[in-house]
Amino acid sequence: MKKILVTIPVKECHMERINELVSGCAVNFVPAGQATEEQVAEASVIIGNVPAKMIKASENLELLQLESAGADAYLPAGVLAEKTVLCNATGAYNRTVTEHAVALTLMLMKKLYLYRDLQREGKWTDLGAAMSPVGATVLVVGLGEIGLQYAQRMKEMGAYVIGVKRREGSCPEGIDELVRTEEIDRVLPRADVVFSILPNTKQTVHFYTGERFRLMKDSALFINCGRGNAVESSVLLKALQDGQIAAAAVDVTETEPLPADSPLWRQPNLVITPHVAGGYHIPHTLECIVDIACENLRRWREGEEFCNVVDPETGYRK
Amino acid sequence: MKKILVTIPVKECHMERINELVSGCAVNFVPAGQATEEQVAEASVIIGNVPAKMIKASENLELLQLESAGADAYLPAGVLAEKTVLCNATGAYNRTVTEHAVALTLMLMKKLYLYRDLQREGKWTDLGAAMSPVGATVLVVGLGEIGLQYAQRMKEMGAYVIGVKRREGSCPEGIDELVRTEEIDRVLPRADVVFSILPNTKQTVHFYTGERFRLMKDSALFINCGRGNAVESSVLLKALQDGQIAAAAVDVTETEPLPADSPLWRQPNLVITPHVAGGYHIPHTLECIVDIACENLRRWREGEEFCNVVDPETGYRK
Repeated sequence: MKKILVTIPVKECHMERINELVSGCAVNFVPAGQATEEQVAEASVIIGNVPAKMIKASENLELLQLESAGADAYLPAGVLAEKTVLCNATGAYNRTVTEHAVALTLMLMKKLYLYRDLQREGKWTDLGAAMSPVGATVLVVGLGEIGLQYAQRMKEMGAYVIGVKRREGSCPEGIDELVRTEEIDRVLPRADVVFSILPNTKQTVHFYTGERFRLMKDSALFINCGRGNAVESSVLLKALQDGQIAAAAVDVTETEPLPADSPLWRQPNLVITPHVAGGYHIPHTLECIVDIACENLRRWREGEEFCNVVDPETGYRK
Repeated sequence: MKKILVTIPVKECHMERINELVSGCAVNFVPAGQATEEQVAEASVIIGNVPAKMIKASENLELLQLESAGADAYLPAGVLAEKTVLCNATGAYNRTVTEHAVALTLMLMKKLYLYRDLQREGKWTDLGAAMSPVGATVLVVGLGEIGLQYAQRMKEMGAYVIGVKRREGSCPEGIDELVRTEEIDRVLPRADVVFSILPNTKQTVHFYTGERFRLMKDSALFINCGRGNAVESSVLLKALQDGQIAAAAVDVTETEPLPADSPLWRQPNLVITPHVAGGYHIPHTLECIVDIACENLRRWREGEEFCNVVDPETGYRK
């Protein structure tokens, strides 16, 4: 009897659904972090991000269905056997990350973080001009599903959206203007908002250089909900301290957790949230992950090709 | 030669536009607060909220075009002569207030105010569940133009919107369900978000009683961008302290400015902004006010009926 190990935080209804799908198998539901070496070694399918070092290229493992979009930890040689298909959960986090990113954008536009600071001092002080999304030029850097959904939200609120995309292609619906990544320097000076949702690839490490921040308007807002290493902490700090941009909000930092002694914490025009845009913060995310996992379980049972297969070259969905 | 006094913060292009409209008159452009008794007494038209006590029921004054929606200060007997028509700027603040209200709503939903507090302590701490607008039941109390625009924004983000309206009528587009104000207690227990954009009338003073907060979910979010006297400070404080609701954000308070020693400032699950949703925080607002003023100047010149005339019964646009 084949064994399936599930470490995602499923509910009763999800367990029933999974058991029904693979009724001939033994399904082990184990809380994250509590799976044993034996359970991992025996599993034909694992659903959830078990620690990479526990897998030891197990020859039993046919499918590893991650609960994350990032798959970096599972790509190095020796982690997975050649036969193991690695699938991620790209798509599951679209809604939660988009909502968090829009919330951060409006918080910066309306100076709500500064009013929160004033509140702590009991100060009723008008901080003057706010930014309206109407007519604002919003640069969306990274046109995956989250980038496109964020673009749609900002457009509904009246923004003009310039999309920045790695590959050449036609302009997606809802994007007013499309440029390729290598042309970004040409459009940075026009942006009122720069939203970064770049994945973690060789090309995106330290993508936002000091030079690129200098190209931005001094009134520009920078929001990063992609990967922290897209911008070096020292470069971001300098851009904010020198007023090269007006303010920034980041859900990701170069080192996570951000060390308590990092000067970023105390930079007044920087908003930091601790990598919470994704995760299981809204119930919808878990539903999506269970949907992806169940679809792949069904395909595994039927011997069909999997969905959400990770491209070992990019580390992201093919 | 008739005299026109303008105290709103016009730009060069607005001055030209006004001068052209009433080319036979003498137009005085004076910064707010700097108009003299004589200038006020001689004016046939005033554009801007000159202090009510300066007007002294001047018989010269044919039109007082306010730059605000509220007209309370000008309604008492003896402020305006009988012949003076009082017009407000209702409509001009729709965009700015709606945007601010949406920003506050998302800030509460995603706990961004608490993350800001944690940031000050250098703490990288996940605060768990956030609220998604998708599927959230949003109660919009006060279905004027701002209420309707806020409803539309929240609906675009996936919310189910219940509108609460004083007068009977058909359900406006974009509202999923309509109830009359006296029926509100029936729907309060269903709301994930209660957004108040009630005007200041006899019926709305202290509208949100302790009993009404107790009817709300303990997970509910309360947002007030209408008038501060819709809820007593002590009632709001108790609702937040006792966990009758999860959090609140208010741009208006019963007393403004909120006294520095008010315990509201230090209530952790309350966000306060200092009546900045309206005002001249985005350039669009001034454009709208100038549009309304110019339309009424034209009507004054042509002897037509004015727009945006204040109803002395309600204090709001007829």
